[in-house]
Amino acid sequence: MVTTSLSLTEIARNTQIAARQLAILSTDERNAALDAIAQALESATPEIVTANEADCQVAKQEGISQALFSRLKLGAAKLKAGIEGVRDVKKLSDPVGTVQIHRELGTGLVLKRFTCPLGVLGVIFEARPDALIQITSLAIKSGNGVILKAGKEATKTCQALVTIIHKALAETKVNPDVVQLLTTREEIRALLDLDEYVDLIIPRGSNAFVRYIQDNTKIPVLGHADGICHLYIDRSANLEKAISITVDSKTQYPAACNAIETLLVHRDIAYKFLPLVAEALQDKQVELRGDVITQEVINISAATEEDWSTEYSDLILSIKVVESLEEAILHINTYGSKHTEAIVTEDEQAAEIFCSQVDAAGVFKNCSTRFADGFRYGFGAEVGISTQKMPPRGPVGLEGLVTYKYKIVGDGHIVATYAGDDAKPFTHRDLE
Amino acid sequence: MVTTSLSLTEIARNTQIAARQLAILSTDERNAALDAIAQALESATPEIVTANEADCQVAKQEGISQALFSRLKLGAAKLKAGIEGVRDVKKLSDPVGTVQIHRELGTGLVLKRFTCPLGVLGVIFEARPDALIQITSLAIKSGNGVILKAGKEATKTCQALVTIIHKALAETKVNPDVVQLLTTREEIRALLDLDEYVDLIIPRGSNAFVRYIQDNTKIPVLGHADGICHLYIDRSANLEKAISITVDSKTQYPAACNAIETLLVHRDIAYKFLPLVAEALQDKQVELRGDVITQEVINISAATEEDWSTEYSDLILSIKVVESLEEAILHINTYGSKHTEAIVTEDEQAAEIFCSQVDAAGVFKNCSTRFADGFRYGFGAEVGISTQKMPPRGPVGLEGLVTYKYKIVGDGHIVATYAGDDAKPFTHRDLE
Repeated sequence: MVTTSLSLTEIARNTQIAARQLAILSTDERNAALDAIAQALESATPEIVTANEADCQVAKQEGISQALFSRLKLGAAKLKAGIEGVRDVKKLSDPVGTVQIHRELGTGLVLKRFTCPLGVLGVIFEARPDALIQITSLAIKSGNGVILKAGKEATKTCQALVTIIHKALAETKVNPDVVQLLTTREEIRALLDLDEYVDLIIPRGSNAFVRYIQDNTKIPVLGHADGICHLYIDRSANLEKAISITVDSKTQYPAACNAIETLLVHRDIAYKFLPLVAEALQDKQVELRGDVITQEVINISAATEEDWSTEYSDLILSIKVVESLEEAILHINTYGSKHTEAIVTEDEQAAEIFCSQVDAAGVFKNCSTRFADGFRYGFGAEVGISTQKMPPRGPVGLEGLVTYKYKIVGDGHIVATYAGDDAKPFTHRDLE
Repeated sequence: MVTTSLSLTEIARNTQIAARQLAILSTDERNAALDAIAQALESATPEIVTANEADCQVAKQEGISQALFSRLKLGAAKLKAGIEGVRDVKKLSDPVGTVQIHRELGTGLVLKRFTCPLGVLGVIFEARPDALIQITSLAIKSGNGVILKAGKEATKTCQALVTIIHKALAETKVNPDVVQLLTTREEIRALLDLDEYVDLIIPRGSNAFVRYIQDNTKIPVLGHADGICHLYIDRSANLEKAISITVDSKTQYPAACNAIETLLVHRDIAYKFLPLVAEALQDKQVELRGDVITQEVINISAATEEDWSTEYSDLILSIKVVESLEEAILHINTYGSKHTEAIVTEDEQAAEIFCSQVDAAGVFKNCSTRFADGFRYGFGAEVGISTQKMPPRGPVGLEGLVTYKYKIVGDGHIVATYAGDDAKPFTHRDLE
């Protein structure tokens, strides 16, 4: 059984202790633990599938939506893909121990800055058991402990998974306490207060949920509440590309945070472009809402002020005609959530101005906003997308799970030697 | 006059607009603005000195302490050094526009990650007018707007400085609105609520003040409340180095955050080392407080539990004898503020364990904790020292004032091409 009688604080303290041991293991030792987990999950496939069937049955009785049910369901095929994922994470390059600065400060006094694990992650996610497998792999790969809280519908599956993971880790150099599972909703609130033990919270879920987390903890939060992305069709756009990019950005996966919510169209091409794009979008069952000028050109319902700040996460798109590139940029900087913003144009200068003046993690020219994604960027794995200004920003791979330390090695060096009237100068010579 | 009738929100909005214009200026244009500021401050030296004398006179009448007075005082010589500082900042390499990732995602689809300014900084500092000059230079160099709030004792000097800086900027490509001065304490609280306009708060001041800021804003805060640093003298320490490093770490500048507050001594060398180090420290007027075992060896007053978590910022040092390296690490990870921690040892393995298991921004072997400083690290300028886990961590140079953006350039690329059964594979080829 995973459930224990320890208090959450004791669990967190144990995780921190185990994580500090994990932090000093070698790349090979962490990779060996990932192998052991993959192997154990493979062997325990029937057990996991059975636990998941029990969860699915209860969820069905409680009338879970089809979308949630398909996320919860962990058949043998999806589990196999998850296990493949563990082995993929193992193959990623080690984010720990990268030397970022290596510098002689003075004779015999050497500074190194190198990456190291953050400590303990708190990850709160939906009723998707395969996410547990992925998050655990990423945590161990990056040398971090992890306290997991999954949607309650997945409790039995998650307990089975963590029991198997613990057994697998017990045979490796990694202390099983690095992975912990919480099973009650009340524990989320308590987790948010554990800033002494938890170094980063990664929430997945609705905008309102993420905002609740952000507003109720001192622990840094990696994630984003809103994904209000725009596509701006410039006067110099190629209309064929513009239509194709609009349709992809809206419909390729409308529930994604990088799908667009508002289309901005330059007035000079609005009369030509709007009827064409409306037809293409309506073919895909997209409901359109337009400002006054848009409504003069195509027959759609009205967009209100509220539409400009709404993330539909659905097949709905608001449209606004703008007088200029500057108005488009101003609209985006006012209503956008600093996630991903795109321009379609053949005018190099307009693209330059757009990409430098729009304040967002992603600024794209002549391509779909849907490319904003850690896998598509080549990060191998994505731990979240951040819309804050400070790094890590945008899609975050393993590098978001590490920090760095400064190490100085001397031989009795003191600052008094380098201060005052006879101060010895620093050499500040970068080393190989 | 700098004082205006605009509301703080309007001021912040104007700063944001001006900062967005500044963000797209070239390196040369930003450097030219720094030249203009240095030139203007040079020409206006008498005016600045006069304004400062007025501040100093009021401060004296109000009975300001000698330490604060010497920070407030801005004579011609200190001003000259400040102006040299502006020219030094100009010479630093441009933190903006550095390409961090350049990668082909697919044929004709190219991703770039490059550094860009954060936006608007809110900097709250003591009554040190030379700090205003330095902060303004760093902000313009890094392409950011800055809202400044200095200690009230320096109001006249700061108003004079900002008036001169505004006049100088008016002759350059930089909109003078990038630099704003607040003059009342009430505005600090209001500033903390402006998360829509202000991207980073940098507070300088007492621990209690920094903690107040951290607890009362959603804006990221760069800084640290406490600086509780330790020096651990291992059983294998060279005693001569140990004494010299202890004296330097405690007395070279006891008010600094990187000075030590607690000395940890391995039991095996305590009887030999403690009398020697006590003599050296008492020669420098350091008050010593020890745990029970320390008191058995040297005649000093008792350290209480409270001492282990106190930042004296003064010539006081607590001393504790530990049974092992592990106990030293545990004490540091319990009471330290994750700032800078040092070990003195000739045992390479003990140093390795210490540096990897101690959780702090700086881990030093055989040198003084006082080396933890942006200038000493060769960053050219220091904007603050951060004790948080996430980067930027430790002494932060100009890189702490920039973030990054992802830019993708395509030619009509859509995600549908790279998804589904016929998915085209990504190339993920790093480019020069």
